[in-house]
Amino acid sequence: MTPALAFFYGGMVNRKNVLSTMMKSVVAAGVVGVLWIIVGYSLCFGESIHGIIGNPLTHLFYKGVVSGPVWGPAPTIPKALFSMFQLMFAIITPGLVVGAIAERMRFSAYVLFTVLFSLLVYAPLAHWSWHPDGFLAKMGALDFAGGTVVHISAGCAALAGALVLKRRKVHIAGKETHPANIPYVLIGTGLLWFGWFGFNAGSALAANSLAVSAFSTTNTAAAAAGLSWMFFDVMRGKKPSVVGFCVGAVVGLVAITPAAGYVAVPQSIFIGAFAAVISNMAVHFKATKTVLDDTLDVFPCHGIGGMVGMLLTGVFGTLAVNKAGANGLLNGNPGFFFIQLKAMLIAVGYSFAVSWVIFKVINFIVPLRVSEEEELEGLDASQHDEKYTQGTLLVATPEGLKEQEIM
Amino acid sequence: MTPALAFFYGGMVNRKNVLSTMMKSVVAAGVVGVLWIIVGYSLCFGESIHGIIGNPLTHLFYKGVVSGPVWGPAPTIPKALFSMFQLMFAIITPGLVVGAIAERMRFSAYVLFTVLFSLLVYAPLAHWSWHPDGFLAKMGALDFAGGTVVHISAGCAALAGALVLKRRKVHIAGKETHPANIPYVLIGTGLLWFGWFGFNAGSALAANSLAVSAFSTTNTAAAAAGLSWMFFDVMRGKKPSVVGFCVGAVVGLVAITPAAGYVAVPQSIFIGAFAAVISNMAVHFKATKTVLDDTLDVFPCHGIGGMVGMLLTGVFGTLAVNKAGANGLLNGNPGFFFIQLKAMLIAVGYSFAVSWVIFKVINFIVPLRVSEEEELEGLDASQHDEKYTQGTLLVATPEGLKEQEIM
Amino acid sequence: MTPALAFFYGGMVNRKNVLSTMMKSVVAAGVVGVLWIIVGYSLCFGESIHGIIGNPLTHLFYKGVVSGPVWGPAPTIPKALFSMFQLMFAIITPGLVVGAIAERMRFSAYVLFTVLFSLLVYAPLAHWSWHPDGFLAKMGALDFAGGTVVHISAGCAALAGALVLKRRKVHIAGKETHPANIPYVLIGTGLLWFGWFGFNAGSALAANSLAVSAFSTTNTAAAAAGLSWMFFDVMRGKKPSVVGFCVGAVVGLVAITPAAGYVAVPQSIFIGAFAAVISNMAVHFKATKTVLDDTLDVFPCHGIGGMVGMLLTGVFGTLAVNKAGANGLLNGNPGFFFIQLKAMLIAVGYSFAVSWVIFKVINFIVPLRVSEEEELEGLDASQHDEKYTQGTLLVATPEGLKEQEIM
Repeated sequence: MTPALAFFYGGMVNRKNVLSTMMKSVVAAGVVGVLWIIVGYSLCFGESIHGIIGNPLTHLFYKGVVSGPVWGPAPTIPKALFSMFQLMFAIITPGLVVGAIAERMRFSAYVLFTVLFSLLVYAPLAHWSWHPDGFLAKMGALDFAGGTVVHISAGCAALAGALVLKRRKVHIAGKETHPANIPYVLIGTGLLWFGWFGFNAGSALAANSLAVSAFSTTNTAAAAAGLSWMFFDVMRGKKPSVVGFCVGAVVGLVAITPAAGYVAVPQSIFIGAFAAVISNMAVHFKATKTVLDDTLDVFPCHGIGGMVGMLLTGVFGTLAVNKAGANGLLNGNPGFFFIQLKAMLIAVGYSFAVSWVIFKVINFIVPLRVSEEEELEGLDASQHDEKYTQGTLLVATPEGLKEQEIM
Repeated sequence: MTPALAFFYGGMVNRKNVLSTMMKSVVAAGVVGVLWIIVGYSLCFGESIHGIIGNPLTHLFYKGVVSGPVWGPAPTIPKALFSMFQLMFAIITPGLVVGAIAERMRFSAYVLFTVLFSLLVYAPLAHWSWHPDGFLAKMGALDFAGGTVVHISAGCAALAGALVLKRRKVHIAGKETHPANIPYVLIGTGLLWFGWFGFNAGSALAANSLAVSAFSTTNTAAAAAGLSWMFFDVMRGKKPSVVGFCVGAVVGLVAITPAAGYVAVPQSIFIGAFAAVISNMAVHFKATKTVLDDTLDVFPCHGIGGMVGMLLTGVFGTLAVNKAGANGLLNGNPGFFFIQLKAMLIAVGYSFAVSWVIFKVINFIVPLRVSEEEELEGLDASQHDEKYTQGTLLVATPEGLKEQEIM
Repeated sequence: MTPALAFFYGGMVNRKNVLSTMMKSVVAAGVVGVLWIIVGYSLCFGESIHGIIGNPLTHLFYKGVVSGPVWGPAPTIPKALFSMFQLMFAIITPGLVVGAIAERMRFSAYVLFTVLFSLLVYAPLAHWSWHPDGFLAKMGALDFAGGTVVHISAGCAALAGALVLKRRKVHIAGKETHPANIPYVLIGTGLLWFGWFGFNAGSALAANSLAVSAFSTTNTAAAAAGLSWMFFDVMRGKKPSVVGFCVGAVVGLVAITPAAGYVAVPQSIFIGAFAAVISNMAVHFKATKTVLDDTLDVFPCHGIGGMVGMLLTGVFGTLAVNKAGANGLLNGNPGFFFIQLKAMLIAVGYSFAVSWVIFKVINFIVPLRVSEEEELEGLDASQHDEKYTQGTLLVATPEGLKEQEIM
């Protein structure tokens, strides 16, 4: 999933920032991968401290994970497998935030962000929702595969990051930038789609018919959302585009994430199609009515997509699909809808506020933004001393014959 | 598999048509993904109407798929998993046709094609071959993983499409076009090869030794076919090429598809190597002796490759590998060979004729081809308003200094 | 894994040699894929001849593999599945050598090399380590997933190849060449990382808690190694780079390979981090203090990485993780450490010496190196008549307006 995200984002930015964007998504696999062994897993799934956070000592340095007893809620798989599966979620979440701060955030500041965000935002949210003693879980809120924990938290952190970091020079100048490499966006989407089957079907925590049901709703929502985004673009006079189809499909995947194991397959067509229209409108609104510079629309796609998914789980949820689920609004249970709404608001508020503070604090330690010259030169060169492709051409310029780099 | 195909084809076309080619392969995942839930699965695997087609009402809007009883021929897996697995075949088939109509077919016309082809060509063929009451299945014809249903149907639809759409301007002008990006072809091939394991081994419909056998024949045929295509090129005085190895491997995968679970591993070396030589000769014949403009050789590779595979299943089939299979010609049962031949001819005739009519009918609704100017400009720009990579260079031209796009 | 390696290497070479490098990695899938069925599997896992080599007749032409009894050491999976799994190792090993001989070795000579190396180096080493009667296995040496068989053998063959082939013209001229396409390196790394889970977790030969443990150590070592390489670069005044993180992660994967199922998860942090520092120093030493032209550092990364892994297995091995393993130096068993050292030295000596002879012998049959003109032109054009991307630009040059190729 991590290289998938790297290509999805890396293909969309300006060609001077392809590698720096990819590198930020990828380094999270390193940082969170090590942090998880030390204390991350324990904070998420250690013994619950009042439903707020896991005890960091329960599994400090992975104590008792490999050899210990199985994880209660998933008794058919080893605890260490559950942990590795959960790690994939923990890695991708800070990676998602990269889209909002791309083309201007300093690499070292981002590395620091992944550490603080994982400990202070991700771990509590995962504990609240997925530990049986977590307070959102106890409240009855349902999040099948990360609507709040992954997408709302990343989307709101993205919004906070975009606000604290302020606008890129090209954004202020009102220049349009074209995606550096659209096939990268496509391969990223393809790999994300495929990996999402693992996230959503795997969240059944067993190879059973619930996993198959989640697999089916996931694919259907993504297909419907890709088409929906494309048709909505066409209705507004734009041409159907590869990037549009891809972004739409990802929004569908986001929206079905909390719902995947709680709703029926035909309803997932609506969930995907509806979420795509809402996010498409949000992207359009952001671009035309605001000066927010969320580079690759992480908040409208993941944040709002996750919110739509949480609420529609409250609308379409049905015990017919999953006895451990809940009936929703349309199945005569408005109470569950309001629980979902409450859980969603708590996740939005917490992740936005804490992320905002994290960005502000980091700015005291190391400047969040690269210098103006570095931004102009591109972060690939200034942060990593690399160019994404290589090639030179002898070209006549006003100053005479010069070797020019081709990207 | 869908992005795999998108890269396999997208890397081979002219650089002005990379995205439009990819987009056509990909949109099938959206269109067929939704159609399948509504009525597609039911047409393929609903209650049989005289062995001709499934009853569309049996599983309309996925009724009874997730919660219903298991699918008879695959009692060890949930029906919904069988359905999702089958969906992958249904998505890739119209996607394969893209190779033949690339660089000139209008996007909206292609979207319409995916709907009509799925309902009128794919669904009947799948029902005939894979529903236990389908008339080809009852006749005793064997198609393990889609020789007729996927490859012959796509190959013959490709031939029909190429004939109805007529030749591209560059083809008429006799200009050679180079593949836009050969590494894309390679990554596409790699992902197809990997995904094919899922198709062919998965067609055993259980994790048993038959699946392993199909896995082994699949890999062996692909390896042998890649080498065979390469050596055949060298024998004709050409250099061994990446594209040649890749196309050869795909032909091997095509040819082993109907045979994978019915033949032994050593025989799969011959099946792959032989199919590659036949397709290589067919591609050469097409290019030098005909004016057919099947852009990326879908008919010689998938159509003829599928036919070779169906017939060689009739030659090498053995009950020693699969008790549910049949002995072939070399195992003393010429009758089975003629059943395979008959099934092949029916599939060829039906899919070519109906696809031809579909292309003709669509042409009444929306012009199949883009305009001459749009074709010259490339379909990426004219159909999707996108460019596959981004970059500009200040270049001296006869008209003075100009900013020129780099692809 | 094969296309993963093709992209990892193909992205790092000069842009005139992208395809020739990829093609060499890929053709091994064809050559070894067929050879394996004929005699390769039998040489590795046929009846042992004095612990030295498998009897080639035991499974000649795959006799008794699909229908025969299960493989003793892996009684829960069919022998044919074990064989296909082993084939993946056999294919990747000669592919790894490509990195050392890239940009100058003739394609036909490399094809010959894959055959001879597979029969004379790979098969014996696999037999010694992984057949229960192999002499290294009997000695008590442990190699979980290919530290000696895959990485030491490939690394030492790479060293031999670089020495026999001598230096590239650009290396002699002291010119730096930039990687052709860094995102290719990244997608290659991502796919390798993912595939390595299959190699290392699969080497448990069952879906049990040992597989999960190996999965966990693998991911942790890779994460730690990527970070470690990056921080070590930064400490030396370089910028953190995408290529550095990727190469580091691969070194971590290499080093954990022999240890994956024998060590605990926290120790794998050290194994990855330490191996990355050692290999980083070795690469630096090679570049600054020697004239060895191992194009992409296969020996310092795979050879030395594999050695470090073998020795650290002897240091950190613990029966607490795997009863079929052994306690290492830190668990009070120095004897095991010396067995690992001895096995390592045997593997290093054998694979270097025999590979050196193979390269020398091939040079009598077909020149190992392309001609000077072909090297200058690039191997893509001279060996395969292909260009990796397509594009032309009208450019003013001293000789007037000329169409120039863009790569």
